[in-house]
Amino acid sequence: MSGPEQSQITFGVLNETSHDESRVALTPDIVTRLARQGITCLMESCAGVRAGFRDEDYQRAGAAVTDRNTVLSKSQVLGFVNRPDTSLLSRIQNKTWIIGMLGSFSDQDYIKALDEAGLTGIAMERLPRQLSSAQSMDEMTSQNSVMGYKAALVAADAYGSFFPMMTTAAGTIRPAKVLVLGAGIAGLQAIGTAKRLGAVVTAYDVRPASRQEVESLGAKFLDLGLDFSKGQGEGGYARQLNSQEQAQQQAAVDAKAAGFDVVITTAKVPGGKPPRLLSAKGVANLHPGAVVVDCAASDLGGNVEGSQVGTTTTHEGVIMIGAPYLASGVATTASSLLARNVADVLVHFVRNGALSIKADDGIDQALVVTGTAESGARGSTDAASSEKKGHQQ
Amino acid sequence: MSGPEQSQITFGVLNETSHDESRVALTPDIVTRLARQGITCLMESCAGVRAGFRDEDYQRAGAAVTDRNTVLSKSQVLGFVNRPDTSLLSRIQNKTWIIGMLGSFSDQDYIKALDEAGLTGIAMERLPRQLSSAQSMDEMTSQNSVMGYKAALVAADAYGSFFPMMTTAAGTIRPAKVLVLGAGIAGLQAIGTAKRLGAVVTAYDVRPASRQEVESLGAKFLDLGLDFSKGQGEGGYARQLNSQEQAQQQAAVDAKAAGFDVVITTAKVPGGKPPRLLSAKGVANLHPGAVVVDCAASDLGGNVEGSQVGTTTTHEGVIMIGAPYLASGVATTASSLLARNVADVLVHFVRNGALSIKADDGIDQALVVTGTAESGARGSTDAASSEKKGHQQ
Repeated sequence: MSGPEQSQITFGVLNETSHDESRVALTPDIVTRLARQGITCLMESCAGVRAGFRDEDYQRAGAAVTDRNTVLSKSQVLGFVNRPDTSLLSRIQNKTWIIGMLGSFSDQDYIKALDEAGLTGIAMERLPRQLSSAQSMDEMTSQNSVMGYKAALVAADAYGSFFPMMTTAAGTIRPAKVLVLGAGIAGLQAIGTAKRLGAVVTAYDVRPASRQEVESLGAKFLDLGLDFSKGQGEGGYARQLNSQEQAQQQAAVDAKAAGFDVVITTAKVPGGKPPRLLSAKGVANLHPGAVVVDCAASDLGGNVEGSQVGTTTTHEGVIMIGAPYLASGVATTASSLLARNVADVLVHFVRNGALSIKADDGIDQALVVTGTAESGARGSTDAASSEKKGHQQ
Repeated sequence: MSGPEQSQITFGVLNETSHDESRVALTPDIVTRLARQGITCLMESCAGVRAGFRDEDYQRAGAAVTDRNTVLSKSQVLGFVNRPDTSLLSRIQNKTWIIGMLGSFSDQDYIKALDEAGLTGIAMERLPRQLSSAQSMDEMTSQNSVMGYKAALVAADAYGSFFPMMTTAAGTIRPAKVLVLGAGIAGLQAIGTAKRLGAVVTAYDVRPASRQEVESLGAKFLDLGLDFSKGQGEGGYARQLNSQEQAQQQAAVDAKAAGFDVVITTAKVPGGKPPRLLSAKGVANLHPGAVVVDCAASDLGGNVEGSQVGTTTTHEGVIMIGAPYLASGVATTASSLLARNVADVLVHFVRNGALSIKADDGIDQALVVTGTAESGARGSTDAASSEKKGHQQ
């Protein structure tokens, strides 16, 4: 191992299990950064390949590249883009820390399994993003930003016409009219990218504050003629609308969407069912050749009725792309940002050269979902039951 | 048939035979336009579907939609994106006019077959584009423009990082460095689109005049340190370099390409072998994750050694896309422009309500490759032997 002599902590990263996942939780530049904090990095061979990082890149940065069993047996902390499969938990040593998107808002069984395996679970999805000290750890923000960029690219690539206006000797091509539903991090990045490409962009969000953000990017705010004046929920996410409000919103969006060439939807609920924004009727109103990119597509349904995860389907000529994995499609950038987020969380928990949890720290309180450190980690049941659902846009 | 009563000429369009072709030579708006000139349009059913135009769209515009045999038996002129297969020629009536990309620069056997079938061949690839009266007929320009736009999009979509710079709490992502080789119509559009997306763009062309065009788009001109001061050839295309010059150029490009994240090449020779600009050695110098889009990929080889038509391959982590069909990938816009080009050529030949060829017209002289009109169409051998090869960039 080529890490510094004073290392107290070994941070291990494995190949992600999902075939849809190209990202990796550690990048070579972060290896160097962690070494300065006395943290040694252990990579499973080929874990970074799909994100464009080779084993030799990690070795050159000071990490040891080895096999899965060695990573599992030598690491005090394991970092994941997603989370270790349940089948892997029994192979992880007791008291190991697990940092990742643990699904703690929706999957209580998994958190229980983590607890029973004696593992300390650090749930990235629970980051208190409103704390300024947590900003550089905000994986949801960094990955949604990448997703929004890619959503606009994917839409432009699928669309049979130009995004920009083009004037030629053979006539003028009008710019594409793009509608972005959900103007959080992902939506704003989609707006910005579609605008860069020359499209005329309109956007909608349930949060009243978003009008100004949308307009500051040079896009038009879509007025549905509805008042959800308390649309802003906790932590900067949109609040969940009640069912009557949701029905009103959907009917209004269905009616307004008809004139657009491209619709990009980005309204997610962490671990929950995404709000339906566009029904099959709304999709049928679009013209043949129109493109819908549903970034919230999930097995529970997406923002758009009929969207299917990871698949492009055609409905009466409308091209519908169910695209929840878009951040993984820009794997190098997404991993660079994510690795920084994960590393900053890791470093946050290093106190006096060892991993520890402080009862009175806001970040610790939010992130730790299982663990038995003497300093006061919360049990799984407490943490997992404090639901904080909202649109993650 | 719903065309106007005074129609003298029937213009027919069939489904294109190639599976790689989504474009169509006639769009609904052009149907209306031609009707005003007394030209009736006949469409084979479904010919526009892949470009986003339905049979009912054509019918609404005034075209008759019917089966292939009816189109073949009733049309005085047939329009193609490409050209009719040799097997189809025997089914086309004697004296029918064929407008399309006929491949007359490279495929003498085909032109001979057209002639033997008694067909009048109008070769779009021979348009004298320097004539201002020919500008709205310039299919090469309109389609190369679409190709350049799509090349930048395809490159951005394949690249694992961002094109724009992004500054986040988790660090700054530097913008992509894009190199465009060949700064003709396609290259300039690729430069513009990559710049729109926020990339830092450098471009090279053998024609000295292109430096100013490249710089006017805000891109940097790549100085190879070579003097091909007579790089400009006939008709605004680059001239063919001799083999020593080509070798110098390739060695210089190989050396300079190493620092770029994305390379887009657009140097085509109508009907001929494209110049090799980047060798396997140059590709090997690129970093893993770099993207190469070769718009000149062909069965004869492309601008980049190892590129394969219609396929994405990976060479030591470098993603190489052989992409000659990119205009077809933006089928709606490409067809709209192309249909206008084809229609303007058609209308050009309509004199006193009938199709005719004038011996003293520059456009007629250039385009007609076969035909026996009394007014002086040239025989196939004459026309096809006047080679005018050059880089079509």
